Amino acid sequence: MSETEPGGATGATAPDLAFDEQELLPAVAQDADTGEVLMLAYVDETAVSRTRETGYAHYYSRSRDELWKKGATSGHTQRVREVRADCDGDALLYVVEQSGGACHTGFESCFYRTLDGETVGERVFDPDAVYDDEAEDADGTGDSTDSGASGGAADTDG
Amino acid sequence: MSETEPGGATGATAPDLAFDEQELLPAVAQDADTGEVLMLAYVDETAVSRTRETGYAHYYSRSRDELWKKGATSGHTQRVREVRADCDGDALLYVVEQSGGACHTGFESCFYRTLDGETVGERVFDPDAVYDDEAEDADGTGDSTDSGASGGAADTDG
Repeated sequence: MSETEPGGATGATAPDLAFDEQELLPAVAQDADTGEVLMLAYVDETAVSRTRETGYAHYYSRSRDELWKKGATSGHTQRVREVRADCDGDALLYVVEQSGGACHTGFESCFYRTLDGETVGERVFDPDAVYDDEAEDADGTGDSTDSGASGGAADTDG
Repeated sequence: MSETEPGGATGATAPDLAFDEQELLPAVAQDADTGEVLMLAYVDETAVSRTRETGYAHYYSRSRDELWKKGATSGHTQRVREVRADCDGDALLYVVEQSGGACHTGFESCFYRTLDGETVGERVFDPDAVYDDEAEDADGTGDSTDSGASGGAADTDG
Protein backbone atom coordinates (compact mmCIF):
# COMPACT_ATOMS: atom_id res chain seq x y z
CA MET A 1 0.00 0.00 0.00
CA SER A 2 1.39 3.38 -0.83
CA GLU A 3 1.17 6.60 1.09
CA THR A 4 -0.95 8.96 -0.95
CA GLU A 5 0.40 12.06 0.70
CA PRO A 6 -2.82 13.74 1.72
CA GLY A 7 -1.86 17.11 2.96
CA GLY A 8 1.61 16.73 1.58
CA ALA A 9 2.67 19.72 -0.43
CA THR A 10 5.90 18.62 -2.00
CA GLY A 11 6.53 16.84 -5.23
CA ALA A 12 9.19 14.60 -3.68
CA THR A 13 8.83 10.84 -3.78
CA ALA A 14 7.09 9.65 -0.65
CA PRO A 15 8.17 6.35 0.87
CA ASP A 16 5.66 3.54 0.43
CA LEU A 17 4.12 2.52 3.70
CA ALA A 18 3.73 -1.17 4.46
CA PHE A 19 0.64 -1.38 6.61
CA ASP A 20 0.10 -4.79 8.20
CA GLU A 21 -2.94 -6.99 7.68
CA GLN A 22 -4.82 -4.96 10.29
CA GLU A 23 -3.97 -1.87 8.21
CA LEU A 24 -1.80 -0.57 11.02
CA LEU A 25 1.75 0.56 11.63
CA PRO A 26 3.57 1.27 14.88
CA ALA A 27 4.42 4.94 15.35
CA VAL A 28 7.03 6.16 17.81
CA ALA A 29 6.67 9.67 19.21
CA GLN A 30 9.88 11.49 20.09
CA ASP A 31 10.21 14.84 21.81
CA ALA A 32 11.63 17.26 19.26
CA ASP A 33 13.50 19.27 21.88
CA THR A 34 14.84 16.69 24.34
CA GLY A 35 15.05 13.68 22.04
CA GLU A 36 13.20 11.61 24.60
CA VAL A 37 11.21 8.67 23.26
CA LEU A 38 7.73 9.42 24.55
CA MET A 39 5.45 6.57 23.51
CA LEU A 40 4.63 3.96 20.93
CA ALA A 41 1.14 3.64 19.49
CA TYR A 42 -0.44 2.54 16.23
CA VAL A 43 -1.66 4.40 13.18
CA ASP A 44 -3.84 3.56 10.24
CA GLU A 45 -3.86 5.51 7.00
CA THR A 46 -6.52 7.90 8.27
CA ALA A 47 -4.50 8.68 11.40
CA VAL A 48 -1.46 9.47 9.26
CA SER A 49 -3.52 11.71 6.99
CA ARG A 50 -5.15 13.51 9.89
CA THR A 51 -1.78 14.03 11.53
CA ARG A 52 -0.38 15.64 8.40
CA GLU A 53 -3.47 17.72 7.72
CA THR A 54 -3.80 19.10 11.24
CA GLY A 55 -0.21 19.10 12.43
CA TYR A 56 -1.26 17.24 15.57
CA ALA A 57 -0.51 13.61 16.34
CA HIS A 58 -3.36 11.21 15.68
CA TYR A 59 -3.30 7.49 16.32
CA TYR A 60 -5.60 4.54 15.95
CA SER A 61 -6.95 2.98 19.13
CA ARG A 62 -6.92 -0.78 18.72
CA SER A 63 -8.99 -1.27 21.85
CA ARG A 64 -11.68 1.26 20.97
CA ASP A 65 -11.34 0.66 17.26
CA GLU A 66 -11.25 4.34 16.42
CA LEU A 67 -9.14 7.30 15.49
CA TRP A 68 -7.91 9.35 18.41
CA LYS A 69 -6.20 12.66 18.68
CA LYS A 70 -3.52 12.55 21.34
CA GLY A 71 -4.45 14.94 24.12
CA ALA A 72 -8.12 15.40 23.19
CA THR A 73 -9.04 14.73 26.83
CA SER A 74 -5.92 15.68 28.70
CA GLY A 75 -4.89 18.65 26.64
CA HIS A 76 -1.51 17.01 26.32
CA THR A 77 -1.35 17.28 22.58
CA GLN A 78 1.59 16.60 20.31
CA ARG A 79 2.38 19.23 17.71
CA VAL A 80 4.11 17.31 14.95
CA ARG A 81 7.21 18.85 13.45
CA GLU A 82 8.05 15.96 11.18
CA VAL A 83 6.85 12.49 10.26
CA ARG A 84 9.51 10.03 9.19
CA ALA A 85 9.18 6.51 7.80
CA ASP A 86 11.74 3.80 8.37
CA CYS A 87 13.73 2.11 5.62
CA ASP A 88 11.14 -0.50 4.81
CA GLY A 89 8.11 1.66 5.50
CA ASP A 90 6.66 -0.43 8.30
CA ALA A 91 7.18 2.02 11.16
CA LEU A 92 6.81 5.76 11.61
CA LEU A 93 8.51 8.34 13.77
CA TYR A 94 6.57 11.40 14.89
CA VAL A 95 8.91 14.17 15.98
CA VAL A 96 6.71 16.23 18.30
CA GLU A 97 6.37 19.15 20.65
CA GLN A 98 4.73 17.50 23.64
CA SER A 99 2.37 19.53 25.83
CA GLY A 100 2.29 18.31 29.43
CA GLY A 101 3.32 14.66 29.55
CA ALA A 102 2.85 11.89 27.04
CA CYS A 103 1.91 9.20 29.53
CA HIS A 104 -1.50 8.84 31.15
CA THR A 105 0.29 7.96 34.41
CA GLY A 106 1.66 11.49 34.66
CA PHE A 107 5.13 10.74 33.38
CA GLU A 108 6.72 12.68 30.58
CA SER A 109 7.36 9.42 28.71
CA CYS A 110 5.57 6.09 28.79
CA PHE A 111 9.04 4.50 28.96
CA TYR A 112 9.61 5.58 32.54
CA ARG A 113 10.71 2.23 33.99
CA THR A 114 13.53 -0.19 33.36
CA LEU A 115 12.84 -3.90 33.11
CA ASP A 116 14.26 -4.20 36.61
CA GLY A 117 11.48 -1.95 37.86
CA GLU A 118 13.60 1.12 38.44
CA THR A 119 11.83 4.40 37.73
CA VAL A 120 13.99 6.48 35.42
CA GLY A 121 11.40 8.89 34.05
CA GLU A 122 10.12 12.17 35.35
CA ARG A 123 6.56 12.69 36.55
CA VAL A 124 5.28 15.96 35.15
CA PHE A 125 1.57 16.00 36.03
CA ASP A 126 -0.98 14.52 38.39
CA PRO A 127 -3.22 12.17 36.41
CA ASP A 128 -6.04 12.50 38.96
CA ALA A 129 -6.19 16.19 38.25
CA VAL A 130 -6.19 15.71 34.50
CA TYR A 131 -8.48 12.76 33.95
CA ASP A 132 -11.69 13.22 35.89
CA ASP A 133 -14.82 11.11 35.84
CA GLU A 134 -16.45 13.30 33.26
CA ALA A 135 -13.64 12.98 30.77
CA GLU A 136 -14.96 10.30 28.51
CA ASP A 137 -14.57 11.65 25.06
CA ALA A 138 -12.65 10.20 22.17
CA ASP A 139 -9.33 10.42 23.94
CA GLY A 140 -10.39 8.04 26.68
CA THR A 141 -10.20 8.50 30.40
CA GLY A 142 -6.55 7.83 30.94
CA ASP A 143 -7.24 4.14 31.34
CA SER A 144 -4.68 2.88 28.91
CA THR A 145 -4.60 -0.68 30.09
CA ASP A 146 -7.80 -1.79 28.47
CA SER A 147 -6.75 -5.41 28.17
CA GLY A 148 -9.71 -6.37 26.07
CA ALA A 149 -7.87 -4.91 23.12
CA SER A 150 -7.48 -7.12 20.10
CA GLY A 151 -4.04 -8.59 19.90
CA GLY A 152 -3.79 -8.66 23.67
CA ALA A 153 -2.14 -5.31 23.55
CA ALA A 154 -3.44 -2.07 25.00
CA ASP A 155 -3.22 1.40 23.58
CA THR A 156 -1.56 4.26 25.27
CA ASP A 157 -4.12 6.98 25.59
CA GLY A 158 -4.04 10.31 27.26
CA MET B 1 2.54 -13.10 30.36
CA SER B 2 5.05 -11.81 32.84
CA GLU B 3 8.69 -11.03 32.39
CA THR B 4 10.60 -13.57 34.39
CA GLU B 5 13.73 -11.48 34.61
CA PRO B 6 16.28 -13.94 33.31
CA GLY B 7 19.61 -12.32 33.82
CA GLY B 8 18.06 -9.72 36.04
CA ALA B 9 19.98 -9.25 39.23
CA THR B 10 17.79 -6.91 41.22
CA GLY B 11 14.96 -7.63 43.57
CA ALA B 12 12.90 -4.73 42.27
CA THR B 13 9.48 -5.34 40.80
CA ALA B 14 9.82 -5.87 37.08
CA PRO B 15 7.05 -4.60 34.83
CA ASP B 16 4.87 -7.32 33.36
CA LEU B 17 5.31 -7.58 29.62
CA ALA B 18 2.23 -7.97 27.44
CA PHE B 19 3.42 -10.01 24.48
CA ASP B 20 0.92 -10.21 21.63
CA GLU B 21 -0.63 -13.39 20.27
CA GLN B 22 2.51 -13.95 18.17
CA GLU B 23 4.48 -13.70 21.41
CA LEU B 24 6.12 -10.51 20.18
CA LEU B 25 6.58 -6.92 21.24
CA PRO B 26 7.89 -3.94 19.27
CA ALA B 27 11.24 -2.67 20.53
CA VAL B 28 12.59 0.77 19.72
CA ALA B 29 16.35 1.28 19.71
CA GLN B 30 17.62 4.72 20.68
CA ASP B 31 21.19 5.96 20.56
CA ALA B 32 22.31 6.51 24.15
CA ASP B 33 24.57 9.41 23.25
CA THR B 34 22.71 11.34 20.56
CA GLY B 35 19.14 10.40 21.49
CA GLU B 36 18.45 9.50 17.88
CA VAL B 37 15.76 6.89 17.29
CA LEU B 38 17.63 4.25 15.31
CA MET B 39 15.15 1.53 14.42
CA LEU B 40 12.09 -0.44 15.40
CA ALA B 41 12.10 -4.23 15.40
CA TYR B 42 10.38 -7.02 17.29
CA VAL B 43 11.39 -9.15 20.23
CA ASP B 44 10.14 -12.35 21.77
CA GLU B 45 10.88 -13.42 25.31
CA THR B 46 14.09 -15.18 24.26
CA ALA B 47 15.38 -12.07 22.51
CA VAL B 48 14.75 -10.02 25.63
CA SER B 49 16.53 -12.59 27.79
CA ARG B 50 19.47 -12.85 25.45
CA THR B 51 19.75 -9.07 25.32
CA ARG B 52 19.90 -8.84 29.08
CA GLU B 53 22.29 -11.75 29.48
CA THR B 54 24.77 -10.61 26.85
CA GLY B 55 24.36 -6.85 26.98
CA TYR B 56 23.89 -6.78 23.19
CA ALA B 57 20.63 -6.10 21.39
CA HIS B 58 18.85 -9.18 20.13
CA TYR B 59 15.61 -9.19 18.19
CA TYR B 60 13.27 -11.70 16.64
CA SER B 61 13.15 -11.87 12.86
CA ARG B 62 9.55 -12.32 11.75
CA SER B 63 10.56 -13.07 8.18
CA ARG B 64 13.19 -15.66 9.06
CA ASP B 65 11.37 -16.81 12.16
CA GLU B 66 14.46 -16.75 14.32
CA LEU B 67 16.44 -14.90 16.93
CA TRP B 68 18.98 -12.47 15.58
CA LYS B 69 21.76 -10.53 17.16
CA LYS B 70 21.93 -7.07 15.69
CA GLY B 71 25.23 -6.65 13.88
CA ALA B 72 26.16 -10.33 13.66
CA THR B 73 26.92 -9.87 9.96
CA SER B 74 27.70 -6.19 9.70
CA GLY B 75 29.56 -5.80 12.97
CA HIS B 76 27.19 -2.93 13.71
CA THR B 77 26.21 -4.20 17.11
CA GLN B 78 24.20 -2.40 19.76
CA ARG B 79 25.63 -2.44 23.27
CA VAL B 80 22.58 -2.07 25.49
CA ARG B 81 22.83 0.35 28.36
CA GLU B 82 19.26 0.02 29.51
CA VAL B 83 16.03 -1.73 28.60
CA ARG B 84 12.83 0.10 29.46
CA ALA B 85 9.22 -1.03 29.21
CA ASP B 86 6.34 1.31 28.51
CA CYS B 87 3.47 1.96 30.90
CA ASP B 88 1.36 -0.96 29.76
CA GLY B 89 4.25 -3.31 29.01
CA ASP B 90 3.52 -3.75 25.33
CA ALA B 91 6.58 -1.98 23.95
CA LEU B 92 10.27 -1.83 24.86
CA LEU B 93 12.98 0.78 24.54
CA TYR B 94 16.58 -0.33 24.09
CA VAL B 95 18.99 2.49 24.95
CA VAL B 96 22.10 1.51 23.02
CA GLU B 97 25.62 2.36 21.98
CA GLN B 98 25.43 1.83 18.23
CA SER B 99 28.52 0.69 16.36
CA GLY B 100 28.58 1.85 12.74
CA GLY B 101 25.04 2.54 11.58
CA ALA B 102 21.76 0.92 12.54
CA CYS B 103 20.28 0.76 9.05
CA HIS B 104 21.22 -1.79 6.41
CA THR B 105 21.06 1.03 3.84
CA GLY B 106 24.09 2.68 5.40
CA PHE B 107 22.25 5.33 7.34
CA GLU B 108 22.78 5.89 11.02
CA SER B 109 19.04 5.49 11.62
CA CYS B 110 16.38 3.60 9.71
CA PHE B 111 14.23 6.72 10.07
CA TYR B 112 16.24 8.71 7.57
CA ARG B 113 13.37 9.97 5.37
CA THR B 114 10.35 12.12 5.92
CA LEU B 115 6.99 11.08 4.50
CA ASP B 116 7.54 13.71 1.83
CA GLY B 117 10.62 11.82 0.69
CA GLU B 118 13.18 14.23 2.05
CA THR B 119 16.36 12.59 3.34
CA VAL B 120 17.07 13.89 6.82
CA GLY B 121 19.41 11.18 8.12
CA GLU B 122 23.12 10.78 7.78
CA ARG B 123 24.75 8.02 5.79
CA VAL B 124 27.60 6.58 7.83
CA PHE B 125 28.73 3.52 5.90
CA ASP B 126 28.68 1.93 2.46
CA PRO B 127 26.37 -1.08 2.57
CA ASP B 128 28.10 -2.69 -0.43
CA ALA B 129 31.32 -2.79 1.53
CA VAL B 130 29.66 -4.24 4.60
CA TYR B 131 27.26 -6.80 3.21
CA ASP B 132 28.98 -8.99 0.66
CA ASP B 133 27.71 -12.08 -1.08
CA GLU B 134 29.22 -14.37 1.49
CA ALA B 135 27.53 -12.74 4.43
CA GLU B 136 24.64 -15.06 4.98
CA ASP B 137 24.66 -15.85 8.64
CA ALA B 138 21.97 -15.23 11.21
CA ASP B 139 22.07 -11.48 10.75
CA GLY B 140 21.01 -11.65 7.13
CA THR B 141 22.55 -10.03 4.11
CA GLY B 142 21.30 -6.56 4.53
CA ASP B 143 18.16 -7.34 2.61
CA SER B 144 15.65 -6.07 5.06
CA THR B 145 12.74 -5.85 2.71
CA ASP B 146 11.90 -9.52 2.67
CA SER B 147 8.24 -9.00 1.92
CA GLY B 148 7.35 -12.64 2.47
CA ALA B 149 7.31 -11.89 6.17
CA SER B 150 4.23 -12.89 8.05
CA GLY B 151 2.04 -9.94 8.76
CA GLY B 152 3.16 -8.30 5.55
CA ALA B 153 5.85 -6.49 7.45
CA ALA B 154 9.55 -6.86 7.01
CA ASP B 155 12.28 -6.89 9.61
CA THR B 156 15.09 -4.44 9.77
CA ASP B 157 18.27 -6.42 9.70
CA GLY B 158 21.86 -5.41 9.50
